[in-house]
Amino acid sequence: MVATMDSAGLTALAEKTRTVQGSALRDMLALVMRPDLQSFALGLPAPELLPLADCRAAAAQVLAGDPEALQYHLPCESLKSHLRQLLATRGIDCTEKQIFLTTGAQQATHLVANFLLSPGQQVIMEEVTYEGLHLAIQPLNPEPLIVPTDPETGIDIDAVEEQLERGASPAFIYTITDGHNPLGRSLSVEARIRLVELARRFRTPIVEDDVFGFLNYDGPASPPMRSLDDEWVFYIGSFSKILAPSLRVGWIVVPAALQQALSSLKQASDLDITTLGHLTAAAYLDAGHLPAHLATIRSEYRRRRDAMVRALEANFPSAARWSTPSCGMFVWVELPGEVDTGELLRAAVESESVAFMPGDIFAIPGLPRSRNGMRLNFTHSRVEDIEEGIARLAKVLRKFLHRDFSC
Amino acid sequence: MVATMDSAGLTALAEKTRTVQGSALRDMLALVMRPDLQSFALGLPAPELLPLADCRAAAAQVLAGDPEALQYHLPCESLKSHLRQLLATRGIDCTEKQIFLTTGAQQATHLVANFLLSPGQQVIMEEVTYEGLHLAIQPLNPEPLIVPTDPETGIDIDAVEEQLERGASPAFIYTITDGHNPLGRSLSVEARIRLVELARRFRTPIVEDDVFGFLNYDGPASPPMRSLDDEWVFYIGSFSKILAPSLRVGWIVVPAALQQALSSLKQASDLDITTLGHLTAAAYLDAGHLPAHLATIRSEYRRRRDAMVRALEANFPSAARWSTPSCGMFVWVELPGEVDTGELLRAAVESESVAFMPGDIFAIPGLPRSRNGMRLNFTHSRVEDIEEGIARLAKVLRKFLHRDFSC
Repeated sequence: MVATMDSAGLTALAEKTRTVQGSALRDMLALVMRPDLQSFALGLPAPELLPLADCRAAAAQVLAGDPEALQYHLPCESLKSHLRQLLATRGIDCTEKQIFLTTGAQQATHLVANFLLSPGQQVIMEEVTYEGLHLAIQPLNPEPLIVPTDPETGIDIDAVEEQLERGASPAFIYTITDGHNPLGRSLSVEARIRLVELARRFRTPIVEDDVFGFLNYDGPASPPMRSLDDEWVFYIGSFSKILAPSLRVGWIVVPAALQQALSSLKQASDLDITTLGHLTAAAYLDAGHLPAHLATIRSEYRRRRDAMVRALEANFPSAARWSTPSCGMFVWVELPGEVDTGELLRAAVESESVAFMPGDIFAIPGLPRSRNGMRLNFTHSRVEDIEEGIARLAKVLRKFLHRDFSC
Repeated sequence: MVATMDSAGLTALAEKTRTVQGSALRDMLALVMRPDLQSFALGLPAPELLPLADCRAAAAQVLAGDPEALQYHLPCESLKSHLRQLLATRGIDCTEKQIFLTTGAQQATHLVANFLLSPGQQVIMEEVTYEGLHLAIQPLNPEPLIVPTDPETGIDIDAVEEQLERGASPAFIYTITDGHNPLGRSLSVEARIRLVELARRFRTPIVEDDVFGFLNYDGPASPPMRSLDDEWVFYIGSFSKILAPSLRVGWIVVPAALQQALSSLKQASDLDITTLGHLTAAAYLDAGHLPAHLATIRSEYRRRRDAMVRALEANFPSAARWSTPSCGMFVWVELPGEVDTGELLRAAVESESVAFMPGDIFAIPGLPRSRNGMRLNFTHSRVEDIEEGIARLAKVLRKFLHRDFSC
């Protein structure tokens, strides 16, 4: 990789390069940019529903009067105030002093991981989970304590309890409460209560990723774990899925006493200051646009989710399994055990120009659990493209199964 | 600090909290927000010169047509293309593939440090230097190899050579070529050549921070070290000092072969994607506004620099030393040895509502070298405020010296 640098003096550099794995997410982002591709790969909002005119008005207002909008400033207080009100609609009772603003949820995850996790320490995580968590913790060389997860019921809480009772001392337990990435599932109220009880009993923080909890399709989602505990739950949210990714607005809700430490970590990463994106989001919220926008995207995404599930029912082999997510952006499909979805992806892109995210992306390398899983996004594509794309994907899958069976 | 968390199970968390020191820069930012204060503390652009209307037009254009401006996207190619042209005016010959976009120069510094530096490895750095470097490398627990630096001539290259000849094997040598922070000085052409020769001879990368090189007041600044070597020099730049901090645009110029590794590191930190700020900067550059803006701020900042130097000459005691910077935002003043500028700051804020940055902020804690140094910013304040503020600061200083002498 360091083609022009071959000296022993650069051992450290080369070593670093080896440990920095190319991000599959980024590679997929490059692939999905191919205009000829019908992609269900990424967790993208529908572009035609992005609130362009309202964001334009918000940015114009930010840049209309005070040049200080372009200056260095402390984190945006009015954005925190809006977030406090927004989080209250999810049952979260917090103060502005408990809200820490970040450059999207990935930075929130990265900062929390760097804050909680000492090098080599244990982390309890599901066998498949958000790929950005792997990226965030990898440089700290953690010992992952992998617990099973079920596409219907989620993280195996018995397994979590067993690990903790056996004396595990993890830096944190990571999970996604609603619209799990990649599984789509939401945790039951009982599961939320039990996890919080375990966190308290074993004095182990939970990192609760809730970037999908506002995308609820079958009535209100249950309150997140943060609504049950304000001490052991580090709550992560984002506007990337519900407003606009390029504004780069994420947040962490933590005890107020931890703000300064997080701020120092962010200061070292990219300065803990207000950005044009954060100011634009605050102005957008000032104008009161979010509730109507959320209603619009929930309604359309529900239609798309239903279309995808119908298309799977109509086209996929009966041996494939999936469930209907009540929140989020993804349907998780498990194919017959002999299918490697990484190989299927290559075939699907080559022969039918369809893409999805293979399960291995979300697993610790080497674990076989998700080899036959695929994550399908239903928010980015229109209903007719979902119907046609799933039919094409099923065509590849049938050939693929036939090939495998004929071997 | 972890007031509500007192369990042994959270040892790791508390440990982290202890190692994350409150950032003095951030504390100073909070202090400087006090409207009653005449502050020379921070490296802020003049607010009244920030190009508000042109940025408003640029943002409006970005958000006028394609909703994809709000979507996830790969790093902005048109911004890279503009940067290539801009860097050519500093004598840097590079391709778009060698330009890596970041969330400001702090993230550039953080990513390069994390890329080059293995935990515990050595770093060659000056006895006083940019505080953000300390923040960026601190979590990697490096062994700092501190070399002397001179307010007139800069980094002591003999000392660098001596360290390398003695067998030091640093991850990199860090310096700021023009308008050094906090010293204000620019390196001579000979010094640049010698440092690059050392980097080649000892196969040790130089991290060249050039965020101030475009703010040149006495004719063109000399070409940066990156113009002399495209293999061993990692070049960092930013729009925060010359366009607008809240756009959060920084960059690193590195061999193209290293892009993917940096991208993976950024992906883990906050995703390697385009932001509204980056798009706005690209549209601003498309419109061709930067050259005129640079001419405006250079001309006004030169006036302010001259005013500050005149005010120092008129008001400060003869035992104080400073020099006139040809680039950047700062005048560095060294006071008689018995003065602790940290104490002086508290007195200045309390009795005369004047602030500056005490030298210790820029030094490895415990090293006495900069105890009597102060960094004065001349770009943020109008000429009349510089004149009055320096007079008030001199008043505090006289009292302070008198107090000390009378002890």
